[in-house]
Amino acid sequence: MNNKYLSISHRTRPTPFTNRVEAAGVTAYTVYNHMLLPTAFGGFEEDYWHLCEHVQVWDVSCQRQVEIKGPDSERLMQLMTPRDIRKAVIGQGLYAPLCGERGNLINDPIIIKFAQGDWWISISDSDVKLWVKGLVTGFGLDVQVSEPDVWPLAVQGPKAEELVTRLFGDEVPGIRFFRSKMLEFQGKKMMVARSGFSKKGGFEIYLNDASLAEPLWDELFRLGEDLHVKPGGPNLIERVESGLLSYGNDMTDAHNPFECGLDAFIDIDADIESISLPALRAIAGKHEHQLVGLVFSKDMVFEDFRIEVDNRIVGEIRSHVWSPRYKKHLAMVMMKRDYLGERDTLTVEGVTARVVDLPFDFDAII
Amino acid sequence: MNNKYLSISHRTRPTPFTNRVEAAGVTAYTVYNHMLLPTAFGGFEEDYWHLCEHVQVWDVSCQRQVEIKGPDSERLMQLMTPRDIRKAVIGQGLYAPLCGERGNLINDPIIIKFAQGDWWISISDSDVKLWVKGLVTGFGLDVQVSEPDVWPLAVQGPKAEELVTRLFGDEVPGIRFFRSKMLEFQGKKMMVARSGFSKKGGFEIYLNDASLAEPLWDELFRLGEDLHVKPGGPNLIERVESGLLSYGNDMTDAHNPFECGLDAFIDIDADIESISLPALRAIAGKHEHQLVGLVFSKDMVFEDFRIEVDNRIVGEIRSHVWSPRYKKHLAMVMMKRDYLGERDTLTVEGVTARVVDLPFDFDAII
Repeated sequence: MNNKYLSISHRTRPTPFTNRVEAAGVTAYTVYNHMLLPTAFGGFEEDYWHLCEHVQVWDVSCQRQVEIKGPDSERLMQLMTPRDIRKAVIGQGLYAPLCGERGNLINDPIIIKFAQGDWWISISDSDVKLWVKGLVTGFGLDVQVSEPDVWPLAVQGPKAEELVTRLFGDEVPGIRFFRSKMLEFQGKKMMVARSGFSKKGGFEIYLNDASLAEPLWDELFRLGEDLHVKPGGPNLIERVESGLLSYGNDMTDAHNPFECGLDAFIDIDADIESISLPALRAIAGKHEHQLVGLVFSKDMVFEDFRIEVDNRIVGEIRSHVWSPRYKKHLAMVMMKRDYLGERDTLTVEGVTARVVDLPFDFDAII
Repeated sequence: MNNKYLSISHRTRPTPFTNRVEAAGVTAYTVYNHMLLPTAFGGFEEDYWHLCEHVQVWDVSCQRQVEIKGPDSERLMQLMTPRDIRKAVIGQGLYAPLCGERGNLINDPIIIKFAQGDWWISISDSDVKLWVKGLVTGFGLDVQVSEPDVWPLAVQGPKAEELVTRLFGDEVPGIRFFRSKMLEFQGKKMMVARSGFSKKGGFEIYLNDASLAEPLWDELFRLGEDLHVKPGGPNLIERVESGLLSYGNDMTDAHNPFECGLDAFIDIDADIESISLPALRAIAGKHEHQLVGLVFSKDMVFEDFRIEVDNRIVGEIRSHVWSPRYKKHLAMVMMKRDYLGERDTLTVEGVTARVVDLPFDFDAII
C-alpha cells in the first residue's frame, strides 16, 4: 500500500500555500477536510529528527474553521459538546469533543471563543459544518454558520518561539499555551495561538487573507534561515510518541470520549444543555472499548490490524510506528475492555507487547 | 501538482477490495468519503479507450450508504430533498439533490427506497450522515441512522451487461436503468442496479458481505477474461465528455441546484415538506451562477482556474480534460450569469472557446 499517487482535483482542495509547498519539494499529501495536507518532504524519520531539533512550517489550512455567530451561538456550542464552555475566555482554545445523542464522537476540535457570541471550531477530519447545519435547521436556531477564509499555518519545533517572535514581535513569548493574540503581518491583524499538532512546542497562525499566504511563507523562511527552518507536516512518529489522537485514525464516530481517554474533557455533572450528556452519564464506566498503547521491542509489520484471540476480535491497531528514539514499535490500539482487564502484556502476530496507558510514559517504559 | 504520493492510514479507509486493487496494479487513488477510490491503473487515456470498448470493474466502495429506517424515515428523506420522493418505488434509484435551508447543495446522491420505510442514500463526497444526525436530533425524529457495511462494486462499459449476466444470471438484462434486483452470489442476496458513474452502460453491485469481496472480484475477472475485463475507476475523460457532475469538483455547498442545471430534479410546485423548497422557490430564475461547458480547439494548460475579465472574477474552471476522441479541450465552468448573458464565446488565457450547454452535444460541436 505504499507509493501510490494521489489524484488531485478541485475536490481535494489546494490551499493558498500549495504553490510554496510544491516548490519546497513536498513528496506526499493526505486529504483532510477535503483539502491537501502535506505529510512528507524528506522521509518521515528525517522530518522527525528535524522537528525535534529545529523548526518547521506546516500548511495545516485543512484545519477548517466552522464559524458560528449570532444570538443562539452560545447555546449551539454547548449543545454540541459535553465540555462546559462557560469558562472559556476570548482568544482561548479549548479541546472539546463534539458528541452526538448516543455520546459518540462527531469530531474532536479545538473550539475558540473568537469574540463575544462568535465561535470558531478548528476541526479534525469530518464535516462538522453539516452537523451544525442540521442542528440549526432542526432546532430552529438563530445563528449564521460559515467556513471562513482562514488558513492556519503551524510553526512547530523548539525554535518556533524564536522564529514567530522574529516575525510578529515581542508579544509572542507572552502567549500562554492554548491562548492567542491578534498580531499584525503586513498591516493585517490575524490570530496567533500557542498550539499545534506536535508536542515540540510552537504556534499556529490563523491567516485570514489569502493574498498574504506566499509573503507569510517566504518571510518565515527568510527569517528562519539560521534556525534551519524547513517545511513539514504532522509527523506520524512524533504524534504517536506524544500520544496525540487523530480522529478517523485512532477513533471514529463508533467510539465515545471515555473509550479514547478523554474523560477530563467531559463535565459530567455540569448543569448544561448538551445533546450527549444524558447518554454519556449512562455510559460512564460501562464503555465497551479502551484506547491503550502497545510497546513492542522490535519493528513490526502487521498483516492484519485486527487482534484476534480464540476466534474473537478483541482489538484493533489504529496507529503504529517505529520510534527511532526509543527503539520500540509503538501502537495505539482500541481494545475490548472485557478482554483487556488488567492484563499488562498482549501477544500480536506472535510478538509480545507491553500494554500501557496513553500517552506513552517513556521513563517508565525504557 | 503531479506525481505526489498519498499517505494512507486508517483515516483514508481501505475497502474490502483494496488488496485486489493493489494486486491489480493501481497507480493512483483519490480520497472520497474518507475512503480510497482507485483512479488509475494504466494512464487515464488508455483506461478511457478501454472503458469505451470493453468492461471494467471499479471499486466504488467509497459511495457510502447512509441508511435511514424507522417511523419518521419518509418524512426525513423528504425534508432533505426538493425532489418529490412519493413516486419512488422499491428498488429504484433516484438522483436527488440534498439541499439546505438556503437551497444550497449538501450532496447529490442517488437515494434508493430499499424497502418500505428503509432508505439508502448512496452519497457523493460529503458527510451526509452528520447532516442527517443533526436534523434527527434537532427535529426529534424517530429514525435509526447508520452507515451499513455495504461496498458498491461497479461494472462499467459496453460489455458490462454480458459480464454481469454471466455472474448473476438471466434476470440481469431485465433490470431497467436506475432499477435494481436482489440477486445471489455464493448464497448471499445483494442489490444489483443498472447504474454507475459513466455513460458507457453498466451495473453496480451493492456487496453486503465483506468476506465475499475477493471471491466476487475474482469471479468477475475469471468470467470476463474473454471480454478483456480490466480494473478501472471513474475516468475523468469519460465523465467530462458525458457531462457527469462531481460534487466538490463542479459544484459545492456554495451553489444551488439551478446553478448546476439540476432544475429537473426539483419539484418546485409540489406540496411537500422540504427544508430547501421555500428558498429554492425564491431563488428560481435569479440564481447567480450557471455551470456551462467550454470547448477549446487546442489542448490547454491553465495557469489559473479563475476567469478574470476587467479585474473581475467572472467564472471558474471546475473540471477540464483533453478529449482524445473529439480532439477538443473540454471544461466545465461555473460562470457568473450576469456576465455570461447570451455570449457564445469566451476567451481564457488568450484562447477563445465556445460556450455550450451541458452535457456536451458533440453532434453540434464537431
